[in-house]
Amino acid sequence: MSDIIRQRRAEGRAILNGWLSIPSGISAEIMARAGWDTITIDLQHGMIDLPDAIQMLQAIGNTSALPLARPEWNEPGQIMKLLDAGAMGIICPMVNSAEEARRLVAACRYAPLGERSFGPLRASLIHGADYWKTANEKILVLAMIETRRALDALDEILAVEGLDGVYVGPADFGLSLFGNPDSEPEDERAIAAIASVRQKAQAAGRIAAVHNLSAEHARRMAGQKWDFVTAGSDTRILSQGAASYIQRFNDAG
Amino acid sequence: MSDIIRQRRAEGRAILNGWLSIPSGISAEIMARAGWDTITIDLQHGMIDLPDAIQMLQAIGNTSALPLARPEWNEPGQIMKLLDAGAMGIICPMVNSAEEARRLVAACRYAPLGERSFGPLRASLIHGADYWKTANEKILVLAMIETRRALDALDEILAVEGLDGVYVGPADFGLSLFGNPDSEPEDERAIAAIASVRQKAQAAGRIAAVHNLSAEHARRMAGQKWDFVTAGSDTRILSQGAASYIQRFNDAG
Amino acid sequence: MSDIIRQRRAEGRAILNGWLSIPSGISAEIMARAGWDTITIDLQHGMIDLPDAIQMLQAIGNTSALPLARPEWNEPGQIMKLLDAGAMGIICPMVNSAEEARRLVAACRYAPLGERSFGPLRASLIHGADYWKTANEKILVLAMIETRRALDALDEILAVEGLDGVYVGPADFGLSLFGNPDSEPEDERAIAAIASVRQKAQAAGRIAAVHNLSAEHARRMAGQKWDFVTAGSDTRILSQGAASYIQRFNDAG
Amino acid sequence: MSDIIRQRRAEGRAILNGWLSIPSGISAEIMARAGWDTITIDLQHGMIDLPDAIQMLQAIGNTSALPLARPEWNEPGQIMKLLDAGAMGIICPMVNSAEEARRLVAACRYAPLGERSFGPLRASLIHGADYWKTANEKILVLAMIETRRALDALDEILAVEGLDGVYVGPADFGLSLFGNPDSEPEDERAIAAIASVRQKAQAAGRIAAVHNLSAEHARRMAGQKWDFVTAGSDTRILSQGAASYIQRFNDAG
Amino acid sequence: MSDIIRQRRAEGRAILNGWLSIPSGISAEIMARAGWDTITIDLQHGMIDLPDAIQMLQAIGNTSALPLARPEWNEPGQIMKLLDAGAMGIICPMVNSAEEARRLVAACRYAPLGERSFGPLRASLIHGADYWKTANEKILVLAMIETRRALDALDEILAVEGLDGVYVGPADFGLSLFGNPDSEPEDERAIAAIASVRQKAQAAGRIAAVHNLSAEHARRMAGQKWDFVTAGSDTRILSQGAASYIQRFNDAG
Amino acid sequence: MSDIIRQRRAEGRAILNGWLSIPSGISAEIMARAGWDTITIDLQHGMIDLPDAIQMLQAIGNTSALPLARPEWNEPGQIMKLLDAGAMGIICPMVNSAEEARRLVAACRYAPLGERSFGPLRASLIHGADYWKTANEKILVLAMIETRRALDALDEILAVEGLDGVYVGPADFGLSLFGNPDSEPEDERAIAAIASVRQKAQAAGRIAAVHNLSAEHARRMAGQKWDFVTAGSDTRILSQGAASYIQRFNDAG
Repeated sequence: MSDIIRQRRAEGRAILNGWLSIPSGISAEIMARAGWDTITIDLQHGMIDLPDAIQMLQAIGNTSALPLARPEWNEPGQIMKLLDAGAMGIICPMVNSAEEARRLVAACRYAPLGERSFGPLRASLIHGADYWKTANEKILVLAMIETRRALDALDEILAVEGLDGVYVGPADFGLSLFGNPDSEPEDERAIAAIASVRQKAQAAGRIAAVHNLSAEHARRMAGQKWDFVTAGSDTRILSQGAASYIQRFNDAG
Repeated sequence: MSDIIRQRRAEGRAILNGWLSIPSGISAEIMARAGWDTITIDLQHGMIDLPDAIQMLQAIGNTSALPLARPEWNEPGQIMKLLDAGAMGIICPMVNSAEEARRLVAACRYAPLGERSFGPLRASLIHGADYWKTANEKILVLAMIETRRALDALDEILAVEGLDGVYVGPADFGLSLFGNPDSEPEDERAIAAIASVRQKAQAAGRIAAVHNLSAEHARRMAGQKWDFVTAGSDTRILSQGAASYIQRFNDAG
Repeated sequence: MSDIIRQRRAEGRAILNGWLSIPSGISAEIMARAGWDTITIDLQHGMIDLPDAIQMLQAIGNTSALPLARPEWNEPGQIMKLLDAGAMGIICPMVNSAEEARRLVAACRYAPLGERSFGPLRASLIHGADYWKTANEKILVLAMIETRRALDALDEILAVEGLDGVYVGPADFGLSLFGNPDSEPEDERAIAAIASVRQKAQAAGRIAAVHNLSAEHARRMAGQKWDFVTAGSDTRILSQGAASYIQRFNDAG
Repeated sequence: MSDIIRQRRAEGRAILNGWLSIPSGISAEIMARAGWDTITIDLQHGMIDLPDAIQMLQAIGNTSALPLARPEWNEPGQIMKLLDAGAMGIICPMVNSAEEARRLVAACRYAPLGERSFGPLRASLIHGADYWKTANEKILVLAMIETRRALDALDEILAVEGLDGVYVGPADFGLSLFGNPDSEPEDERAIAAIASVRQKAQAAGRIAAVHNLSAEHARRMAGQKWDFVTAGSDTRILSQGAASYIQRFNDAG
Repeated sequence: MSDIIRQRRAEGRAILNGWLSIPSGISAEIMARAGWDTITIDLQHGMIDLPDAIQMLQAIGNTSALPLARPEWNEPGQIMKLLDAGAMGIICPMVNSAEEARRLVAACRYAPLGERSFGPLRASLIHGADYWKTANEKILVLAMIETRRALDALDEILAVEGLDGVYVGPADFGLSLFGNPDSEPEDERAIAAIASVRQKAQAAGRIAAVHNLSAEHARRMAGQKWDFVTAGSDTRILSQGAASYIQRFNDAG
Repeated sequence: MSDIIRQRRAEGRAILNGWLSIPSGISAEIMARAGWDTITIDLQHGMIDLPDAIQMLQAIGNTSALPLARPEWNEPGQIMKLLDAGAMGIICPMVNSAEEARRLVAACRYAPLGERSFGPLRASLIHGADYWKTANEKILVLAMIETRRALDALDEILAVEGLDGVYVGPADFGLSLFGNPDSEPEDERAIAAIASVRQKAQAAGRIAAVHNLSAEHARRMAGQKWDFVTAGSDTRILSQGAASYIQRFNDAG
């Protein structure tokens, strides 16, 4: 874990994470400068690919936000490349079993903890030639829990060495469990299921992280002692903001 | 002028224009779908170049917003290329004299009105082989009035045949006249100078357009009978929105 | 299946599919406007990657052609991302077993039919917030049958729930079965093998689709009651067309 | 003039030129391999900008076609950069006076003939450190004659030292002279005007070049002893070819 | 194996391989022109993705260097696409077992040797329609040996039909075996382990290749009869060279 | 002038400037980290366009080097955009008269000193909302002296208010004056002409800057009290370095 994450945990405050889905270094730099603790480049559902992500990592480097990335899938090639490019953490989609969690850890950690291939081109450039010595300690590795299978395997997943924590994706979780991709669920069963992930994760000494769309929901989750909360993506801020401008223009008339 | 512009004028309503500075077809499509009448791709102060603009024009084509562009400068090469790519109007920076206004018109209009070179590759693709016959009528041509020189030459500029109207850039206007780049000026002199442009333009039967940052200011200008008001850019919506999310996250705690 | 596919089937007419291998939104928009029912962005053998595909999907959105995509491989990450970006169907290479077909369906269908992760960024933008409710019904999922193994497993593949049909790649099929990558085979054995795929698919109530290079061969296959025929790719049209121009120039002399 | 141009002139054969408007190294390489003597990257009406042009020059380098470029406008910055990137000739739009022709030559020729700035990065890479010594001799410089003003100034334009010839753009020519942008004019006046350019150019010992859309028209012009004829662009080949495929598919039914 | 590889082997000389990690056709063309026998585009640790690689392959085509590629991972999709784009060999990371070696060969060889899918778009463009007939013979396939697991399975890996040889990555090798990612190891155990790979490979009639950072180390390995030695990457040359310029500037003072 | 420039002048040391011609954020970040005082993105002879330059500015922001840019030409559109994107200085090619120098200053300075249009999107993002208040003071503006005309007009050029200094381009200078584009001239006349520019510039209280290829020549010029010396470009370092690696490989054998 990087310093900001340790610090927030020491303060008992949730890490506040921003989210990037637009493939542009400009929007990334604007977002990253707003003051998030960490900011995640989403290569899974975002319209972002590796060349975009590299430019975005360079852009975020101009700010104080710690850059994380969500890869397209739990595949070692892209995960390792994002780390080589300077991402300081991975939020990996669809980790449904301990085996998949081990596969994730293997991609993120150098031997002997994992099997990350050596060649941290940009990471060494910005962090120095000794980067590899502290990489295993500093890189944040979160497994997304977002299906019934993952919920069933949660204990085993949490026991995987080298995993820092779990990250709940409520939309997929709701779709898998209850047929409803609700990102900020009001269904009591969904709320309870999500809460159970936090409890188990924290009981196991791991980080409990959760995706939210709104600041208010993120705040509520932080109040419930989640360690790491995402609040707000560039695309949502842009679409909501544009709608709000037009609404205010019309209302004001 | 395109239909939406004629229609708004017939309704006595201001055209509501959105603004794009992020070089991405994704942010462009999100913004354009929000409901602006027109949306302007800014190649002058936006971080956008021609290849970005082409993708953005294709993205905007998926929405009902009419695409306009602000070129890097009053140069025929890029203006013609933006029109060939499907932009339906040009907001040209720094038109400070009748000669510069004629240069702008020459770049935007086919002979005999102007000297636009023939080769509307994408424009013909999307509007049909007859595009060129109605292009002179449909393309919106606005000259930016943003310096003391432009103000002094305003009558001559407004008399230039083929110019549809003028577009005030209050920041440059304020910087040139009063040393203060205020985008939504409160200085009475600035307000009066800007108002005088509207009055002269409308007296000459031309469109009076004005740049604003906020929806509220845009609304106020629409209330003052400006024909065309810009309200809100992608970068401002994003930076304000991100700041607001973080603020609300902290406040809620 | 999208409307155009249902409609053609109701009419008893083959779907006519175009093919894109050039990584450009401009060539995509030109091709898509020509009048194909569907048009496929080829990320497998085409020189196209995800950022290109996104621009191409935006370009195709300006036309009436339904956009499909062939992913690089049967991997969930890229398949899901193409669907999130607005592709309305997947033609998946090298599906050689029922297990691989199930893997494909899992990537294309939301729960409970599959395991597609939720986050249809651009798809929701263009189709509305309810996109996910009809996505499973509208997304076309075709498995490519192009090896002996696939032929041997065809019955099991066709029985996989959630698969709309199969798509024969004659070149790979011929290479695998007879050592000859003939795209429009004249070898009777190859013709018979290909025909057997159509018969089995249609007997199982599935779509039978086939790749062709020429319009004439596509027409012949449509005459043989294939449901979906590809005819003509951008690269072939371009290389043949250029050769023909030069030939005609020389001949005319 | 490069060798291929000298050779064709010695043979009494017209140079056959292809035309590129799609911003892709892939389509460029496919087109260039078809067998044109020269191939022109169009940055004026094509949807191509400098980064695309650089990739396209690298792609064309894999073929035997001599790469030329049409810049966005008669501006030294872009013209010099295209030459630095390896373009071996410039077809410059809208040269309407001797002064504009001298401006063009100044941008294309090193001192003492012109004012081309020294820094042939890629040109030296591919042609060797001595490139600059023969550049003035090898670079082809053609001024487009496409307006009444250009026609009126033709004698002075042809007298400009360092200009290799003139290139007629019939569409703009027709638009400027007769209000009709006909690319392959049938109007006798247009035909005569165009022919007069060829006669004057050749009488002055300069290359007479002409734009055509079709191979047949190009052949006809070659028969009339034009030195250099363009026939066929990537976009036209693609749109015509796609339409033809669909037509043949439907007809064959 | 391509001609240059056969030729060097016949001469008893090591193949000298350059290495590309910067995503640019310009740096690729500069590097490739320097005189390496082969040059490898690194998509694993390099900051290069497929669209970059395609431009780089086109750039390298302007030189005499034979283009190879290292894919992101041992995944068929990207490997096949690199070959379709014209790469004449694959250096595949992290081949740790005979099964993984077979998977690699399957991706690189057409049937009946492997399962490479047919569609060599650019490869056929540059090598002719018969490319596929000699592709299996010409394409170089090297498996990277860089872990203890790979070392343990070396005999089985070397026995895999269709594999041309093995390529040692000393950094990963050292990290896996001795906890030290030393690219040019001085540890006797590491030296011995690496030497044992060469001996076994050559005993099995396969190519023994090794990664080096410096020319001097590459020379030493060539002296030890390695068949193929990498010496020097663009990023290392650039960072060392820049440091050296600044050093010399300061020293000279 | 930015702090580093003031500081070096106070120390009596020359500013050491690096040079970027490769269009990549990766090579830019590697170069910029090497320790140059300033680093210049070359859009004139470099293969770099605006979108590349923006990414490169973001990359350089991760280092301590001060980013400057050389625009394609003395045109306000691109110069202003480079400044808006965060370039902290402009080295403008081909300033041959006081009028051209005033045109340059007008593009670089806000009113009342110049006519730079207001809209510092990225510059305000990284330097704060007050950026515009100190921009005129901090932005470095250097006019390139590289022709006989410029030499003849030097006194008038040096008298232009708002110009910080002049930058000699020896290659163009030599080509214009003596027909020899020697970047590090040995011809006494060239040496004397170049020295005269330094003397006049410094006598006028302006910065005297000079382009060099090698560290040694840069050191020599620094020894002659030039204020600002360029030494080493990415392309030269790369091509020389690659040649040196191959040479050392062969020599060592």
